[in-house]
Amino acid sequence: MRTVTKDTITDVFAGYFGTDTDPRVREVLVALARHLHAFTREVNLTHEEWQKALEIMEWAGRITTPERNEFVLMSDVMGLSSLVDMVNSRADATSSSVLGPFHVSNAPPLAMGGDMKRDFGGEVLLVEGHVRDTAGNPIAGATLDIWQTAPNGLYSSQDPDQDIHSFHGLMTCDDDGRYAFTTVKPVSYTVPTDGPVGEILNAAGRHPWRPSHLHYIAAAEGFRTLVTEVFPDDDPYLDQDTVFGVRDDLVMHYESRPADTFPDGMELSGKVKEDYLQVTFDVVLANA
Amino acid sequence: MRTVTKDTITDVFAGYFGTDTDPRVREVLVALARHLHAFTREVNLTHEEWQKALEIMEWAGRITTPERNEFVLMSDVMGLSSLVDMVNSRADATSSSVLGPFHVSNAPPLAMGGDMKRDFGGEVLLVEGHVRDTAGNPIAGATLDIWQTAPNGLYSSQDPDQDIHSFHGLMTCDDDGRYAFTTVKPVSYTVPTDGPVGEILNAAGRHPWRPSHLHYIAAAEGFRTLVTEVFPDDDPYLDQDTVFGVRDDLVMHYESRPADTFPDGMELSGKVKEDYLQVTFDVVLANA
Repeated sequence: MRTVTKDTITDVFAGYFGTDTDPRVREVLVALARHLHAFTREVNLTHEEWQKALEIMEWAGRITTPERNEFVLMSDVMGLSSLVDMVNSRADATSSSVLGPFHVSNAPPLAMGGDMKRDFGGEVLLVEGHVRDTAGNPIAGATLDIWQTAPNGLYSSQDPDQDIHSFHGLMTCDDDGRYAFTTVKPVSYTVPTDGPVGEILNAAGRHPWRPSHLHYIAAAEGFRTLVTEVFPDDDPYLDQDTVFGVRDDLVMHYESRPADTFPDGMELSGKVKEDYLQVTFDVVLANA
Repeated sequence: MRTVTKDTITDVFAGYFGTDTDPRVREVLVALARHLHAFTREVNLTHEEWQKALEIMEWAGRITTPERNEFVLMSDVMGLSSLVDMVNSRADATSSSVLGPFHVSNAPPLAMGGDMKRDFGGEVLLVEGHVRDTAGNPIAGATLDIWQTAPNGLYSSQDPDQDIHSFHGLMTCDDDGRYAFTTVKPVSYTVPTDGPVGEILNAAGRHPWRPSHLHYIAAAEGFRTLVTEVFPDDDPYLDQDTVFGVRDDLVMHYESRPADTFPDGMELSGKVKEDYLQVTFDVVLANA
């Protein structure tokens, strides 16, 4: 088609596809073009705004590294990451929630009852629970890849004072699907605001805070891998998580308990001399 | 809102905006989120597909330089650049068409009747025309920033054998709004396919060809700056320009003329010993 108009361009785009292309690739790309074209027409996007969008992408590209992925963060604050989680969630399983840009692969094993806080200060938090299938049966040997911020609000990849696997651990559930470990209570923190995402948040009059949370990737053979988070129910940012990650079934009460109730069989048994916090977070995995 | 669902996330996104934000920023960002959210729901985008999209953006970021902007190219092949041109075009002026990623700023002056081909081989092309307002009055002193590929199909920024302003020139129209220069006929060429845009084109079963063209940025005080292109009417890719840039009013006939008709007053006068091509391209600028 020689003359393309603003009303025909999506059809022309679809018409350019070869006949033997993957139907899913075609479906996704044509739908993406249709929605981006509709957006452009709807707001009558100016050349200056288009240029600004390009500058944002270039800036994101310049500062993205394996340790800091500005494109993931942009997807997060636009609600895209959470929406992908939601359209792929199963109603009968634990909700999924954003992976975020700070997960570090190959976390060291975390033994049953092990401790992630090591020499860091902060109130001890005992985290325990079970991983079960949708019928309530325990999933023996399910793995939990767990990570969180240090008490200073920084992930290991953001903090030159932490080693790369600080506050990262890989736990394997026992035959009852049970897991337990200690850490410090995670803290609310801001997403990085020194790049284009900070500029977007600022232009939108939005704060950059996330409610505190522990990240989990729960996996077991025969089950759908679940990326999720658990939030304390007293966090001031629960109602406005800047990355849209909060779901009702992921908000848990962190119970304050006296030191003398700290259970035996944990790495910190005998070392906890003060009140501690305890939270139970059970995970339900859907079949693959 | 504590629990965000796939059906409420766009409203939650809009609700996060501060009360004193720029209304246009809010309009554009909320519309963008709404369309991206609708896209994600419509195709049930998987985590693997989301991850693939992020890898494409990261890859584009890694290879983007001032000389090669993969984000511009991505916008071009998705039809976005052309659509921005079209929604901003004025029906009573010459159509705009893609800037593309190969324009080099600060082109050297090109005198009236000057020559851009210099030592490059290829058939001489005489380009002439007028720049006028929408009432048909000449615009004295209008400037034309002109650029094109060399006969090898490469722009100066892509070709280590060309200096950076090769086949770039800045012409100033005379009191009658007239301009004239010589060059070689531009050639059809492929957009770069060694990055993520090449992967997208390949997945879509699309070729990477653009019909040959001359680029113009026409500017004059009091008028809207026009970014456009002129295409020869015999190019085999006119009906499937991979960046959607062709408009009927930009397609011109390149007339073959005998050497002895070559006009006086041109830099190449007296040097053209063979048949040459001639094209007239008149430009109409809208008021600012």
